[in-house]
Amino acid sequence: MILRKFNHEIATIRDDRIHGASELARSCLAILARAARELPAEHPAELREQLLRMSRQLAEARPSMTPIRNLLRRWGEALAVGDDPDLAAARDRATVAAEDLIAVSRRAVVDCAARAARSLGASRTVMTHSFSSTVLEACRLLKDQGLRMIVTEARPLEEGRRLAERLAAWRVPTLYITDAQMGLFVARADAVLVGADSVLADGSVVNKVGTYPLALVAREFEVPFYVCCESFKRRDAGDPPPELEEMSPAELGVPDWPGVTVRNVYFDITPARLVTAWIDEAGTSEPENPAK
Amino acid sequence: MILRKFNHEIATIRDDRIHGASELARSCLAILARAARELPAEHPAELREQLLRMSRQLAEARPSMTPIRNLLRRWGEALAVGDDPDLAAARDRATVAAEDLIAVSRRAVVDCAARAARSLGASRTVMTHSFSSTVLEACRLLKDQGLRMIVTEARPLEEGRRLAERLAAWRVPTLYITDAQMGLFVARADAVLVGADSVLADGSVVNKVGTYPLALVAREFEVPFYVCCESFKRRDAGDPPPELEEMSPAELGVPDWPGVTVRNVYFDITPARLVTAWIDEAGTSEPENPAK
Repeated sequence: MILRKFNHEIATIRDDRIHGASELARSCLAILARAARELPAEHPAELREQLLRMSRQLAEARPSMTPIRNLLRRWGEALAVGDDPDLAAARDRATVAAEDLIAVSRRAVVDCAARAARSLGASRTVMTHSFSSTVLEACRLLKDQGLRMIVTEARPLEEGRRLAERLAAWRVPTLYITDAQMGLFVARADAVLVGADSVLADGSVVNKVGTYPLALVAREFEVPFYVCCESFKRRDAGDPPPELEEMSPAELGVPDWPGVTVRNVYFDITPARLVTAWIDEAGTSEPENPAK
Repeated sequence: MILRKFNHEIATIRDDRIHGASELARSCLAILARAARELPAEHPAELREQLLRMSRQLAEARPSMTPIRNLLRRWGEALAVGDDPDLAAARDRATVAAEDLIAVSRRAVVDCAARAARSLGASRTVMTHSFSSTVLEACRLLKDQGLRMIVTEARPLEEGRRLAERLAAWRVPTLYITDAQMGLFVARADAVLVGADSVLADGSVVNKVGTYPLALVAREFEVPFYVCCESFKRRDAGDPPPELEEMSPAELGVPDWPGVTVRNVYFDITPARLVTAWIDEAGTSEPENPAK
């Protein structure tokens, strides 16, 4: 029964096209916290083994989402330390560890957005691509300080629509454009601010596809390009390269032409040399050899 | 009666979102050829005056379309030389001049495409953006020589669909992608080949919006970027800068959010330094100081 529910929850995580990696990582932790309370197990070691297996399955459901990988790894480490005297204590520890990490993750995002907002300052025009909860939070902090936004639609899912809708509710003056118009409008921005799905060990940035050409047009017009995400999105040098998830070609809504292959990769990788600064909850870092 | 028909024809030219600038220029010449036969006029000078007024109205209907400007100017020059003995001779000369220019324009496009096809050569993977009749003709010439294509959809009108459909009919293996994926796939191309709406005096290229970021990603991966269009698309140094036409925001299909301005500019300008070579009916030219 609980396993059937769990399989359904994994499928939900796997098929989610709405939430960002941080939110999904917290959803995974919430699933594990519930499982820690509900899983039938005879003793602490059995519970731990079942939970770690679930955790692996969740991580494998979205291999490109680094916060899932990092937060579940941290959670696995919390499970591994110390011996629990009984099953109830083991359930408690696993649950509390998950809930703590949910809180830590949430605070990291908020701190990171606050730092981004401070870096940008008042009365700025900021361009972004796709929908990032961290960027949205930075916008919320700046919405009464003369913020203006330039938002791309972000085909095929058009996450830019969700962002424009939120900005409209806050009455933030916003330009809404197709992805292809980025080169026409980036020069009007004081800065580009994007979130990230992952930051690789060398500083290159995995984010919604289209981020890379946006970074290139920003460089052409000398508009600073900021990447803002919490440290749980950083991958270690030893981590395998992230898989760039590809979704159904049906999302592009074209016929099944003979000989035509429709590709729908969701992410691209922006080289570190195009990044002006990375902003996370701990601070702001700049590249050692900035691109000219 | 004929003026009402003419006003309707101007509106058709103005609202046309399907045909490229060369085709529309030939349509304008065809309209003028018919008008030269049908316009009520008492003597050659009156006919000429009426025709030139019509020609100006046609040119003003699509100010960003350089071939219209150039071909109608050439036609105006043909009208201005020599005195016609009578009205019938004047009608003949205006009609024949228009028909000659239609033929010259058509041949220029074909010659230009042939030169592009020769430059590319057999067994190449070529990436393009939007729909260009010249690029399509080059594809037709190479379709049985191992050509492979990478085609962007080109929001909002998705002219890439029209191109993919034609390539599919020829069984040219084709990758079809969103505009935002250009940075992911350009490295697979041996060359980028785009048409142009105009080439400015300094060699920069007015083409469907998204061409500029495509040129930037091509440069990043050292993929040659060819611009292929007939010489009627060249603007002189003395010509006013082209207006970048903007179409209805409704084409983006988003709600009317308060404070959100939807922009739908159809063209961008790719700087000359990003162009590897310009190909026209007369030859291939390369920039003097290519970008590094």
